[in-house]
Amino acid sequence: MKVVKFGGSSLASGAQVEKVYHIIAADPERKIVVVSAPGKRYSDDIKVTDLLIGCAEKYLKGQDAHQLVEAILSRYESIAQELHLSNEVIRKISDDLLTLLSGDKSNPASFIEAVKASGEDNNAKLIAAALKHKGLDAHYVSPKEAGLLVSNDPGNARVLSQSYERLYELRNRPGITVFPGFFGYNTNGDVVTFSRSGSDITGSILANGVKAELYENFTDVDAVHAVNPNIVHHPKEIRELTYREMRELSYGGFSVFHDEALIPAFRAGIPVNVKNTNNPEAPGTRIVSARKNTDGPVVGIASDDKFCSIYVGKYLMNREIGFGRKILLILEEFGLSFEHIPSGIDDMTVIVRQNQMEEKVEKKIMQRIMADLDADEVRVEHDLALIMLVGEGMRQKVGTMARASRALADAKINIEMINQGSSETSMMFSVKEAVERKAVQALYHEFFAEVRV
Amino acid sequence: MKVVKFGGSSLASGAQVEKVYHIIAADPERKIVVVSAPGKRYSDDIKVTDLLIGCAEKYLKGQDAHQLVEAILSRYESIAQELHLSNEVIRKISDDLLTLLSGDKSNPASFIEAVKASGEDNNAKLIAAALKHKGLDAHYVSPKEAGLLVSNDPGNARVLSQSYERLYELRNRPGITVFPGFFGYNTNGDVVTFSRSGSDITGSILANGVKAELYENFTDVDAVHAVNPNIVHHPKEIRELTYREMRELSYGGFSVFHDEALIPAFRAGIPVNVKNTNNPEAPGTRIVSARKNTDGPVVGIASDDKFCSIYVGKYLMNREIGFGRKILLILEEFGLSFEHIPSGIDDMTVIVRQNQMEEKVEKKIMQRIMADLDADEVRVEHDLALIMLVGEGMRQKVGTMARASRALADAKINIEMINQGSSETSMMFSVKEAVERKAVQALYHEFFAEVRV
Repeated sequence: MKVVKFGGSSLASGAQVEKVYHIIAADPERKIVVVSAPGKRYSDDIKVTDLLIGCAEKYLKGQDAHQLVEAILSRYESIAQELHLSNEVIRKISDDLLTLLSGDKSNPASFIEAVKASGEDNNAKLIAAALKHKGLDAHYVSPKEAGLLVSNDPGNARVLSQSYERLYELRNRPGITVFPGFFGYNTNGDVVTFSRSGSDITGSILANGVKAELYENFTDVDAVHAVNPNIVHHPKEIRELTYREMRELSYGGFSVFHDEALIPAFRAGIPVNVKNTNNPEAPGTRIVSARKNTDGPVVGIASDDKFCSIYVGKYLMNREIGFGRKILLILEEFGLSFEHIPSGIDDMTVIVRQNQMEEKVEKKIMQRIMADLDADEVRVEHDLALIMLVGEGMRQKVGTMARASRALADAKINIEMINQGSSETSMMFSVKEAVERKAVQALYHEFFAEVRV
Repeated sequence: MKVVKFGGSSLASGAQVEKVYHIIAADPERKIVVVSAPGKRYSDDIKVTDLLIGCAEKYLKGQDAHQLVEAILSRYESIAQELHLSNEVIRKISDDLLTLLSGDKSNPASFIEAVKASGEDNNAKLIAAALKHKGLDAHYVSPKEAGLLVSNDPGNARVLSQSYERLYELRNRPGITVFPGFFGYNTNGDVVTFSRSGSDITGSILANGVKAELYENFTDVDAVHAVNPNIVHHPKEIRELTYREMRELSYGGFSVFHDEALIPAFRAGIPVNVKNTNNPEAPGTRIVSARKNTDGPVVGIASDDKFCSIYVGKYLMNREIGFGRKILLILEEFGLSFEHIPSGIDDMTVIVRQNQMEEKVEKKIMQRIMADLDADEVRVEHDLALIMLVGEGMRQKVGTMARASRALADAKINIEMINQGSSETSMMFSVKEAVERKAVQALYHEFFAEVRV
């Protein structure tokens, strides 16, 4: 049994859904289908989820939203028309959406959650109808009915472990189950969504729940690339990488596959195959527990910007037990999570994502550290990029750091920071944002020279 | 006015004290002399301080200690005899020591502190008498009389800031002040010692207190070497380095100058000159606020062993605000201070000095981290060495990391960890203890090739 997930662009039009049908029909093991909401048909298009968020906000403010509602429904309608579906499913979707929008708004956050999630939910109904119309024995199943329980963190839900046992029952359903991605239900029965692009997470949870042999994740690229194609033209495609490598790459700015979505599949040891709806013949990228290292120490290079560093210096800091902990406590009180903590003898630097710190907060944090810890110096540096070299083979291979740092030096790039050693599959370099592209290109050239364009 | 400090080996015998006399007599600015207790005369010799500790412990247990007392007094006596001093000072030292040993033992820790410190205290009396005998106007001054107040941390005292104003009065004393190193008094009037080799600290505090133009630190080497001479034969001597560079080098295993002793001199901007009692003509090493970089990015390479790393892995650790802080809190509860905290996405490693963790403590810490933080994996790796490349010029110079990591790679040395970026004057590498020497030699060869032996 395979769990197959289709992203928004794979479901944006009737023509796309046609491709989805052929993919599902081609393999009887593809028994569980997880769908996103209809995505963009062209680059200026608006995703249904974004329309829904706008719509929910207007409803909450008591503003007229009929144009948005029409825009949303017309997306489903145009797909249904393209595929010559009966009106029945569109009527159902329309009724469900209008009922939802005119329903209880006493908890605005909860209302927005439910409206947001309806994009996937209604699309699952539509896709089930489309597959049925094409002759497949497909059925919509709601996450509530299936027992997908999640924590009550709107926009950031986590699956509750008791879900897995219930989800196992999906195995016993006849035909093809079409399941909406992106959300589950809290123990009160309210909709709670995962983070954006969370349909990947649903697919992974279901793959774990039913103990699938494979989790196929269909998107609109042939494979995961070794580096961001906006930085290096036509980069190498990755055939196979480990869960750990994929997790490090997605953390470092790779958006092909959702950062957290790997965990449930990893826990159950289920391989993930990232494939292209528009080119299903391409082998795609397989994410597995272990792989043979045949092609160099580095499998991919990820980079992300908008980091900043908080430097704290104090003489004899090293002798003060608890100093580091107190800095982290202050950040925690301001709700900040940190990325890395390089340290010297008498100083410590905490790297955080810049979007967590408004100017005011930054000032307050600096004052608190200065006052509470009697620091000699506190300063914040902005506009840093983090670059991750990722590969299981790096640790065994002496000389990877030498190659990487030589490549950066030859490109005249100053390394602001290096963090290497805790993770066995990555090395982190920090450089100024202004030289991020140049740095990634230099590293790519060093480790993937033979395929350089 | 200069403050001059002489270490234990510079005061181990009458012949050595003769040299000390000539050094002091050669420069009328050498008005304040800080002395250690008599050190080793030959490599198997026992330092007076160690004899005193043994003696105090025997007294506390009510055991016979007369042999130790005799051994201690005979050290002072032999110096006095060599220099033909009158018996008066030896009688005074003998009386003071015996009074101390037969005194109040209600607080054993306090008793040990006072006995330990008597090594320096009595030696200051002896040296004052010796200098007087030679015709200099020298006077013993006790830290109590001078107002050297310290925190009540036995064996780890810190100077209290109010001391400085009082110590300034030492400027107004006639002649040469001979001052015992290693200890001060808490606000209750009890002796409290600095950490071992703390006479360097006393000298630095006095230099700050009297606003000396120079702090001369006389020891038994011509200069600070760029690397440990036990690892590289005849290494380069360092002529000049900054406080910061010296602090990083002493932290990383350089024992020439006490780790903390720089701070008071640094705060007052007083240059420190490390010189050789046995070769006072040699220029020694000057430690200053700023220096011109003329001789490459690296000024010295330090290394130290007996570190271990505590690795903690947990999926999605990155999303848990407070995770890092909680690990540090657990270590703090066990009284551990940490050195570095390299991190990955889902893991964090804390490097600590191994001597802080007995096997039992290690087990308990691992259990606590596992239980309190619900970690997926906790493991401890032992026998790590840290190597510090130190130099103010490193940050400006692109390519230092490339050279260092290439040198290690060519020597087939695997880098366990790199921490670079918080301190602007050092880069930290961690390697297995077994390859520490080889790694240091490789780095020395890379950065100091022209002087290789």
